[in-house]
This record gives sequence, structure tokens and C-alpha cells, in this order.
Amino acid sequence: MKTPKPDIVFIAGTNDAWLGPVERLIDHRLEMMTLDPTQSIPQGLDVSSVQIMVASPKDAKAFAPLFPNLRWIQSTWAGIDALAQSIPVGVAVTPLKGVFGQAMSEFVLGWILSIERQIMQRAKAMTWDPRPETGVRGKVMGILGTGSIGSAIAAAAEPLGIRCRGMNSTGESRPGFEQCFKSGDQHFFEGLDYAVSVLPKTPETDHILGASAFSAMNNEGVIINVGRGNAVDEDALLSALNSHLLKAAVLDVFDVEPLPERHPFWQHPRAFVTSHTAAPTAADSVAVAMKTNLDRYLAGDTLQGLYSEAKGY
Amino acid sequence: MKTPKPDIVFIAGTNDAWLGPVERLIDHRLEMMTLDPTQSIPQGLDVSSVQIMVASPKDAKAFAPLFPNLRWIQSTWAGIDALAQSIPVGVAVTPLKGVFGQAMSEFVLGWILSIERQIMQRAKAMTWDPRPETGVRGKVMGILGTGSIGSAIAAAAEPLGIRCRGMNSTGESRPGFEQCFKSGDQHFFEGLDYAVSVLPKTPETDHILGASAFSAMNNEGVIINVGRGNAVDEDALLSALNSHLLKAAVLDVFDVEPLPERHPFWQHPRAFVTSHTAAPTAADSVAVAMKTNLDRYLAGDTLQGLYSEAKGY
Repeated sequence: MKTPKPDIVFIAGTNDAWLGPVERLIDHRLEMMTLDPTQSIPQGLDVSSVQIMVASPKDAKAFAPLFPNLRWIQSTWAGIDALAQSIPVGVAVTPLKGVFGQAMSEFVLGWILSIERQIMQRAKAMTWDPRPETGVRGKVMGILGTGSIGSAIAAAAEPLGIRCRGMNSTGESRPGFEQCFKSGDQHFFEGLDYAVSVLPKTPETDHILGASAFSAMNNEGVIINVGRGNAVDEDALLSALNSHLLKAAVLDVFDVEPLPERHPFWQHPRAFVTSHTAAPTAADSVAVAMKTNLDRYLAGDTLQGLYSEAKGY
Repeated sequence: MKTPKPDIVFIAGTNDAWLGPVERLIDHRLEMMTLDPTQSIPQGLDVSSVQIMVASPKDAKAFAPLFPNLRWIQSTWAGIDALAQSIPVGVAVTPLKGVFGQAMSEFVLGWILSIERQIMQRAKAMTWDPRPETGVRGKVMGILGTGSIGSAIAAAAEPLGIRCRGMNSTGESRPGFEQCFKSGDQHFFEGLDYAVSVLPKTPETDHILGASAFSAMNNEGVIINVGRGNAVDEDALLSALNSHLLKAAVLDVFDVEPLPERHPFWQHPRAFVTSHTAAPTAADSVAVAMKTNLDRYLAGDTLQGLYSEAKGY
């Protein structure tokens, strides 16, 4: 039996929809092999041959140390906090980028419109009720994070007359945002109707949506967290909802996932919990994200969209 | 007591929010008088003085014949079908136009995103459910009516990757639509995921959303009617929902309004009824719509956006 000498390994179960499109992308350009994340690696595999790995951050953390010549990990997730502290020296990591703006925009606009236009109530109504609803025109949305996801949300909000401001690490202005604020500047929150976090998990983003932010926002404010759970101070959020300082919160990410069944968010009438489903990885998104970098890798060029330890994303 | 000789009358109850902004618009330029639609006109009023009336189509129909020198009716509604057959000879009618696109866009996108992203189900969920949802990218929306409302909806759908085609009376192309079809061309419906009617009530629009349209659409199609009730064949729609030919229908307007409490739409799990609330008349929208035409009227110029009996809107 021939010794397998793969150039690229996929850490994937049979349910991982990204696998097929990535295999078709690689085609015959490299020797490929798929490894089951629940199994040890096969006997006889030449671990020294593997240069590239495509995996979730958690699987990458477990498998990367097994391959001494690994040079590039393509993550199948945007947030790579599960891997960040364990990246082998000399290995480039590309988080999944530029493919979540669409789904995130749908999620953010869908929930804001549902809340403002009372869609949940109307959907179960049994009698005529001609009282008009509030709208979104002229409302102010603050987006924490002005990269590709935040920019896509701002672009989708614009035709509906929603005014967007941004927060990012430097405070530099970005297209689509009326104004940008430096991370930590509490003026960002003053006058916000909606605060939307798409932030990665870093020490700087811990509890950035907390009591002082909620107090600075307009009455009837809405919080949406589609980044990472650490951005929200969950206790402060519950207090703000209970005291009607905020109108509602839509939470897709949490300190602990899955959110435990006894967590008060599940029962709260104005906290809406989704299951880290705001932007599922579309079947072809890993292949789409990997396409340019694969060409660059094979040509010996520097990869784009590399994870930076200094920035934390 | 001095005989009232108003130039302009407002047919309005105390709850009509449009009244204040219109009074401020008129200011001292004309003699104004407000008439209660539930009362007869006051004794001693000089009916020959009245040139302009601001009223709902129904009130305008009742009151217009009382004023022999009436020249202009500003409707407080977009659809003037309640008045269309009763316009006195020589009287210009301006439907409320150009002010509903915002609210209609919110409504259409809000409901489509709620359905595709399962917001109604997620809002009441009590357990973690990571199954991904369908999205709207690449879906095809057919908008029946490509005027200011239809164009606003297409513009708001564009950043979400929804492809829009239009239907109008001539089939002429319009900005924001990939393709436009002439009213009655059944090819319009082929391959539609969403059919959205913003059509006025005319004989040509009767039951334009009927069995053959539903059959031509894609599976899992969604119908949204925010124009007038006559556009939808209600029996055919119920059949199409029950046979799962269509996924859902969102209906804001009906043959009979308010929709009777025993109507099957109220109980149907995939028919969502709203109460002619898709685009409520904003407090200042009548004044905004009337501003240019008031200047033109006082200068002796032709009014813009006149109702055309030939077109029916």
C-alpha cells in the first residue's frame, strides 16, 4: 500500500458542507486528504508532507501540532479565538472573511424591522388593528466593527433611511458611516437607537456593551449581538431590559454556547435568542474565500487577510 | 356674525394627524376651514368660496358635490378608488404620492426576512437550534407596479442580493429592475420567489395574482399584497397555500376591510394579515406631498401627479 503524502488536509465530518466545494477548488493542483476530527490520524500517513490545513479553529488547534511542515491554516469560521493562543510558529492563519456580510445584514435588518413593525405580534393577531407602527427612518444605528460585515450592514440599512455610525480600533472614517469613533469612546453610544456588535473576541471588546453604553443610548433602544458573546455584559443587559431602559435585545452569541436552557434570556419577553445562526457558513463560502489565496500560495505570493496576533483578528 | 368664506376646506376629525402640518403649510396664504366628516356643513358657510379640499377619498366623494366652484381635491390616501367614479367635472385630483416608499419597503423586507430567517419561530424558541435558515441572496422578486413605491422597494432589496423585475402598464424598463414586463404578460411570474403587488385598484388589476400566477412561480413562493385587495384572487390564494404551492402570503389589503373576523386568512398558519398598516400616512406626509402643488396652484400653474381617469391612478 502506497504511503499517503497529502499536501493539504481537510479536518471534516461528513456533514461539513464546505468540503465538496473546496475539493472541487483544489481539483488536481494538490494531493488532498480528508481526516475525521473524531479519529486519530491514519497509520502510515506522511505527516511531513502536509503544508495546508482547512479546519474549524477548534479542530485546527488539535491537529496543527501533528504536522511539522504546516504553513497555512484556512479557518472555516470568521472568529478564530479557539485557535488564537495555539498557532504554531511560522504558520499563517486566514480566518473566513468577506462572506458573512450578506447573512448578517439579513439578520440585523430582519430583526430590527420585525421589532419596529411589530411583525411577531401581527403574525399571531386574530383581529383588525389599524394602529400604525413605528418605522426606522431617521433612526441611528451604531455598528461596533466597521470591516466587511459592518460595512455590509451599513450599506443594507442606508436605503431604509437608517443613519449609521461606526466604532473601530482607530476611529478612522469608513465609507457608509456618517462618523466613526475609536473603540472605548463612550460618545459613540449617545443618541443610538440600535447598537449592533460584529466584534471579534479580544480583551478590548469584553463587556463593551454594558451599563454605561445602555444608559447613553436613546430610550427604546435595541441591542443586537452577532459578533462574540464577550462583548455583552449579560447581567447589565438583563437589568436594562427589566427596567425598560432598553426595548429589546437580539442575541446570537453568548459567553457559553449553546446558551443553557435555564438562562433567563430564553424566557424574557424582549430578549430574542438565536443559536449562533446569524451567519451560517454557506456551502461554498470556504471555497470562495480560499480561491484567491490558493492561487497566491501556489505562486509563492503572500496570503491576504491574515490573522494578526497584534490586532487579535 | 361674519359669513365664513373659506378658500380651502379640510375634511378631518380631531384624530387626523395630517391636519396640523397642512394648516401650517397653508399658513395665511388662504382662508382655511375644517369640517367634521360626521356632521353636515355649518349653516351660513359660503359654499361658493371653496376652491380646494383636502380629504380622504371617501369623504371627498361625500363632500365634493356641495361646493360648486371646487377646483382641486388633495387626497390623503394614495389609492383613490373610493372617489374615482365620482369626481366632479373640472376638478383636479391629486392622490397622495411619493411618500409611501419608505414604509412599504420596511414592510416588504421586514416580512420577507422574517419568513426566510424564521424570525417568528426563533422569537418564541426556548431551546438552542443551530440548523441554518434560508436566506434571500439571489432570490427573484417580482414587483407589480414600478412607480415610486415599487422603485423604493427594489432599491431597498438590492443590497440584500435580491434580484428585482417589474410589471407595469407599458412594459417599459425602469431603473432598479433587471427587466420589466407589460401588465398581463404571464412570463413575468415564471421563476419568481416573491410576488409583491403595489398596484392601484383598476379593472386591469383584478385578480392579477391568481391561480396561473401562483403556478408559474417557484416552489416555496411568497405573495405580498400592499396595493389593493382586488389584485388577489383570495380563493385561489387559499388553495395555493393549502396545497403548499406557495409558502406564505402577507396581506395588508382585502376585498372587504376590515377583514371579517371569520375570514380563513386570520386562522391560516401561513397567511399573515396586517390591517392596512403597511404604509400609514405619516403626520407630515400630506403637507409634504401638497407643498409643491400649492405653490403651483397659487401661481396658476398646472398641478403635478394628477389622477388620470384613462390610467385609473
